[in-house]
Amino acid sequence: MTTDIFFQIATPAEALARLFKHLPFTPSSERIGLDAALGRVTATPLISPEDSPAFARSAMDGYAVRAADTYGASEALPAFLTVDGEVPMGAAATRPVQPGTAQLIHTGGMLPPRADAVVMVEYTQPVDETSVEVLRPAAPGQHIIKAGDDLAAGDPLLPAGHRLRAQDLGVLAALGITEIQAAVPPVIGVLSSGDEIVPADAQPAPGQVRDVNATTLSALARQAGADVREFGVAPDDRAKLERLTRAALAACDLVIISAGSSVSTRDMTAEVIGGLGHPGVLVHGIAVKPGKPTIVAVADGIPVFGLPGNPVSAMVVFGLVVAPTIRRLLGAGPADDPPRRRARLARSLASQTGRIDFVPTALQERDGEWWATPVLGPSNLIATLVRAAGLIRIPLDAGGLAEGAWVDVEPF
Amino acid sequence: MTTDIFFQIATPAEALARLFKHLPFTPSSERIGLDAALGRVTATPLISPEDSPAFARSAMDGYAVRAADTYGASEALPAFLTVDGEVPMGAAATRPVQPGTAQLIHTGGMLPPRADAVVMVEYTQPVDETSVEVLRPAAPGQHIIKAGDDLAAGDPLLPAGHRLRAQDLGVLAALGITEIQAAVPPVIGVLSSGDEIVPADAQPAPGQVRDVNATTLSALARQAGADVREFGVAPDDRAKLERLTRAALAACDLVIISAGSSVSTRDMTAEVIGGLGHPGVLVHGIAVKPGKPTIVAVADGIPVFGLPGNPVSAMVVFGLVVAPTIRRLLGAGPADDPPRRRARLARSLASQTGRIDFVPTALQERDGEWWATPVLGPSNLIATLVRAAGLIRIPLDAGGLAEGAWVDVEPF
Repeated sequence: MTTDIFFQIATPAEALARLFKHLPFTPSSERIGLDAALGRVTATPLISPEDSPAFARSAMDGYAVRAADTYGASEALPAFLTVDGEVPMGAAATRPVQPGTAQLIHTGGMLPPRADAVVMVEYTQPVDETSVEVLRPAAPGQHIIKAGDDLAAGDPLLPAGHRLRAQDLGVLAALGITEIQAAVPPVIGVLSSGDEIVPADAQPAPGQVRDVNATTLSALARQAGADVREFGVAPDDRAKLERLTRAALAACDLVIISAGSSVSTRDMTAEVIGGLGHPGVLVHGIAVKPGKPTIVAVADGIPVFGLPGNPVSAMVVFGLVVAPTIRRLLGAGPADDPPRRRARLARSLASQTGRIDFVPTALQERDGEWWATPVLGPSNLIATLVRAAGLIRIPLDAGGLAEGAWVDVEPF
Repeated sequence: MTTDIFFQIATPAEALARLFKHLPFTPSSERIGLDAALGRVTATPLISPEDSPAFARSAMDGYAVRAADTYGASEALPAFLTVDGEVPMGAAATRPVQPGTAQLIHTGGMLPPRADAVVMVEYTQPVDETSVEVLRPAAPGQHIIKAGDDLAAGDPLLPAGHRLRAQDLGVLAALGITEIQAAVPPVIGVLSSGDEIVPADAQPAPGQVRDVNATTLSALARQAGADVREFGVAPDDRAKLERLTRAALAACDLVIISAGSSVSTRDMTAEVIGGLGHPGVLVHGIAVKPGKPTIVAVADGIPVFGLPGNPVSAMVVFGLVVAPTIRRLLGAGPADDPPRRRARLARSLASQTGRIDFVPTALQERDGEWWATPVLGPSNLIATLVRAAGLIRIPLDAGGLAEGAWVDVEPF
């Protein structure tokens, strides 16, 4: 079989290293408004265009004072200051603080000229309408945020390749940045192969089943920040599969073929993928269970993935190799491993060394502890998909896990 | 001050318990297609409309046999079977397996009549074009998925109130469910108050700053599954704030007012919120740092939140009380605590018992361990927002944490 020539089993990291050598570094970018920027990836580094705050502000409710006027103040012997009005919110504070006086100021209010500290209202006592006692000394600079203390003009805000979170958008808004240059989402072509597969909206004839993976993989690709084009189902006919794949290749930045579950369909898919363009198949088989029958290829600059037909396998492999490739096409660096939930294993699990095992698992909270109950049974059952809340990862070099052991469960 | 009447400090759980007593249980729902259903919440339980698989299938590549024909087979003394053709993929298998014969079958292929087991191809040896040796006995039912083994018609798939994941959509597609009844996203009204606040696209005059929270809270509300309407900024004028708030109340299912940072603005906001409708303010102050100056109210069935002006505080309180309320309005049950990242603390942290402390923190990976470096400094600095990658939660009853201690970091 021709595909045996390419048979090179790889870890996910090795597969990505081989693939990324062939991928361009710079995504195309477009100008977008902040209201459309949540979850998008920055195409350029962003720097602060101005000082923030733009003026010295009070960090507390209290009185703007000259610190020297409060030296030696105590509860027993307060400093007595004349209250010279109130600093208006949202307007310039122009009246200087004269020696022996204080101006009422609110959190966020602009520090008036000649003031060099703020006394918290808790440490003052009103005497009458126009005077106040200060019960503690203030140091110069106390409870003041100076201009540029938060961010100075030119300070780096966010690097290129950063996926924008809610708080990032808030900071950009605060600095008056209402548009940014964002990576254009890559277009992911999704197609399935196999004589037994029909689209979700078709009525399967005897011997046929509806396509699970087109729906699942499209949703995962959108979650990863890509746009999706679905190309339907190709029968087990080499010429037809190649035609459909080439149509996807011409229209997309990345192509996913979810192969049927039989070995013959997979082999045919591998041959078609191998013949699409230079350099062809880079990895045939990854050291992961489930997910071993995975093909990673590049056809003239476009990454092409042949994913297993088994839906759990296809999801696992998507997370390990396709999602990082989408990040790469977006110009984003490698993602940190996702946060995990620590849970105790409700039954022992066997594993082989030399591959990474992913075990779909349900999660229950009992007496303040999370317990992970593996969802076992044949891995091509779709019920597994709805029953599992996470994946237990058993590393390459681990032999298995005992009941009661603590495991880290990844979101699924 | 009138608001003191309502001054009741509460934990986040107590605040939600008081609030939820006043909220309706059933969200309105709408019919949507699967392609628009990712992240939406089911309004009704979903059950399997059919058996899956609809027919007995092979779980392996191999031969469909009558198990009795293989009894006693071994490598030394194989069972000899005549190969009676191949089961077509994607079509009905109609030809019965006759005694002493086998039919070639692929994974997912329909089990032919009279076959009761599948022998894996690895345990067979071809003799010639039309016969095969079986090297191990097969038990009845081996490597077969019977009709309904995965899901039977009427089996529960997903409860009402479930947020749909990629794999859930795949399962629905597999069962031919291409439309579902989903909760209508609640409309969240977002407004800010404070004389010193101007919208993000305005040029602040001296003493003014641009609004951070409208952008941040709108993005968080969208992430939580809501639609958002922004109502702009109200000045520190009771009549104007009340007019803007009532406009939001009339158009929305939930209203968030991000109050200015000064006590006087907050007090005025509390009075306005208290006068909007029955029963008024339920909680004034929550036992969380940052985030204490939070108001939780209901005005004639509509939840109204007064959030702190400090952007980090507003985000923390959003996660603790607003996001769970959005889930409630969507008909979804309480969310599990988010998965966290275990990390070691790079410096000691003080805390007071009697409140939950959230400390924004940066994260670095060093020698395979994650280290959390708290982002300290005045909490109203916006640089904190971009520098922090997570929040360390210090529980109600904890006094502090020592350098090097393991902490759980929530995504931020």
